[in-house]
Amino acid sequence: MPVTVPALATASAGAPFERTTIERRDLGENDVLIDIAYAGICHSDIHQAREEWGRSTFPMVPGHEIAGTVSAVGDAVTAHAVGDRVGVGCFVDSCRVCGPCVAGEEQFCERGAVVTYNGREADGTPTYGGYSTRIVVDAAYVLRIPDALPLDVAAPLLCAGITTYSPLVRWGAGPGRRVAVVGMGGLGHLAVKIASALGAEVTVLGHTLSKKDDGLRFGAQAYETGDRETLKRLAGSFDLVLNTVGADLPLDAYLRTLKLDGAMVYVGLPENKQELRVFSLVGGRRILTGSNIGGIRETQEMLDFCAEHGIGAEIETIGADDVDAAYDRVVASDVRYRFVIDTATLT
Amino acid sequence: MPVTVPALATASAGAPFERTTIERRDLGENDVLIDIAYAGICHSDIHQAREEWGRSTFPMVPGHEIAGTVSAVGDAVTAHAVGDRVGVGCFVDSCRVCGPCVAGEEQFCERGAVVTYNGREADGTPTYGGYSTRIVVDAAYVLRIPDALPLDVAAPLLCAGITTYSPLVRWGAGPGRRVAVVGMGGLGHLAVKIASALGAEVTVLGHTLSKKDDGLRFGAQAYETGDRETLKRLAGSFDLVLNTVGADLPLDAYLRTLKLDGAMVYVGLPENKQELRVFSLVGGRRILTGSNIGGIRETQEMLDFCAEHGIGAEIETIGADDVDAAYDRVVASDVRYRFVIDTATLT
Repeated sequence: MPVTVPALATASAGAPFERTTIERRDLGENDVLIDIAYAGICHSDIHQAREEWGRSTFPMVPGHEIAGTVSAVGDAVTAHAVGDRVGVGCFVDSCRVCGPCVAGEEQFCERGAVVTYNGREADGTPTYGGYSTRIVVDAAYVLRIPDALPLDVAAPLLCAGITTYSPLVRWGAGPGRRVAVVGMGGLGHLAVKIASALGAEVTVLGHTLSKKDDGLRFGAQAYETGDRETLKRLAGSFDLVLNTVGADLPLDAYLRTLKLDGAMVYVGLPENKQELRVFSLVGGRRILTGSNIGGIRETQEMLDFCAEHGIGAEIETIGADDVDAAYDRVVASDVRYRFVIDTATLT
Repeated sequence: MPVTVPALATASAGAPFERTTIERRDLGENDVLIDIAYAGICHSDIHQAREEWGRSTFPMVPGHEIAGTVSAVGDAVTAHAVGDRVGVGCFVDSCRVCGPCVAGEEQFCERGAVVTYNGREADGTPTYGGYSTRIVVDAAYVLRIPDALPLDVAAPLLCAGITTYSPLVRWGAGPGRRVAVVGMGGLGHLAVKIASALGAEVTVLGHTLSKKDDGLRFGAQAYETGDRETLKRLAGSFDLVLNTVGADLPLDAYLRTLKLDGAMVYVGLPENKQELRVFSLVGGRRILTGSNIGGIRETQEMLDFCAEHGIGAEIETIGADDVDAAYDRVVASDVRYRFVIDTATLT
């Protein structure tokens, strides 16, 4: 039997969140029932709730940074047990047979991974995310949260953590490597912590210097602003530039801060087209690329890494009635550094 | 004593070439004196002779695709001997102590490699290129041309060959990999031959289908035009797209022809800024990058590879008085596929 659970939903693009109930499916043999403790607020929640990225499905229950505890498991589930501390990220299913799925890169599933909310299950049922008290998820898409990680600061790792961890590892952040993190918001502050823990020498290129003390505390060696003069001075400095912001950037100036064979990776998603001179790539054999969350295996690796290094998100915990205000503050960059909804306030 | 030799020079931007003489320096202990047999005409010769890339130095003797025979060596030279078949590419010296030089990537010398023409030696002497009968070059910057390669078809390999070989190897062109070559001119036709010899499955994306028969003969499995409909049909097809043209491209459409983690590499140099949507990179973790010739070690590797696989440029041999007309034909894409000057016509 499906179970009816409290949730926060928005009825149409930009409408205020309201307390409601939704149905979660009956526990299948491969499913895990999770009592959600915390759900992070990701900027992409706002884009989708406000229908800024094309067609959204309403009512919408956002939330893909979910941390909680297992309260029931299906008969065939062996990887998780009642009482386990677990998390759910940006997707809850995928085809499991295409090349990317088999390679553990389910986020690039050729049939399209089933996103945690604002998506549809294989049978057409709309998906509802973590702004809720319980969720049923196939065990293969449930992550273990190590005991060393408090659930509240772990929640944002499920999206913001893996979004930054994956490209940092892929592009070689580590000892002897110089990494610039552009922007120090929800993604950026975790990028600084993770890159530092990986052993890289980290420079933040912020919009202002207002978060400098925090940046140095999170592990950065230097904190600069991304103005043209600074970028010019930093020419040829970095092995990796990780851009976490969605603003338009003077791309050529940023590319020129890379060393020979250096890479600039976008995880921020500007709405506008960006322009560059091809010579900025050819002269120095520089790389421009992007990255999109990570697969289940790598997300688990990230959680284990963060637990080992004591890395959690810096959070501001809010109640169910504070979400609309929190959205406005995220858009205004007025949060240090991630809002997390305490879902106990939903009941 | 410096030696006076015949050469073809242009006196100012766009001025017709005229027969003249230039001085080559006295043979130093590390130098090689080369009797030039053939010099290829590279599109970049035209850009520089017409001063389209910023300040040029005149009089200019272009030519950085040089093939010939050693006629004398300095006392300390052991790598080359009189009678050896040799080549010279885009640079004739570099600092030899910076990171890139030590790594054998002299083309990225941090002090700036000494380019073969339109540059200056460390002592300030202007450099003059291969449109001439003899040249003196430091032995460390002289390549061996294997006996299996005729000198005329080898000459263009010194620039066009290494320009395409280096990114093909770096980005994994080989068995089981699908490579698209954009444009089939001087660079593109060698890219097709080299990528095929490396074992990749090659598709040409040409401006028209007029060179289709040639493309298939050079080893391509398919030959298409790069119109939007074709690009849409080819979405997700290629591991590597090598762009050899300088025209503006619909970059997002080309990027979408890449598979997950595929790379698009520019060796063509558009004058205008190019624009793209960051989502074209993030969705599929695609890579946009560039490549710039290659170092001495890799250039030698390329010549040996081409000799082993019977790869030479397709050429049209011209005399010293045909260069102005040849330039116009290169600009009009009216050459299959590289002009090579027979320098015997200079004497």
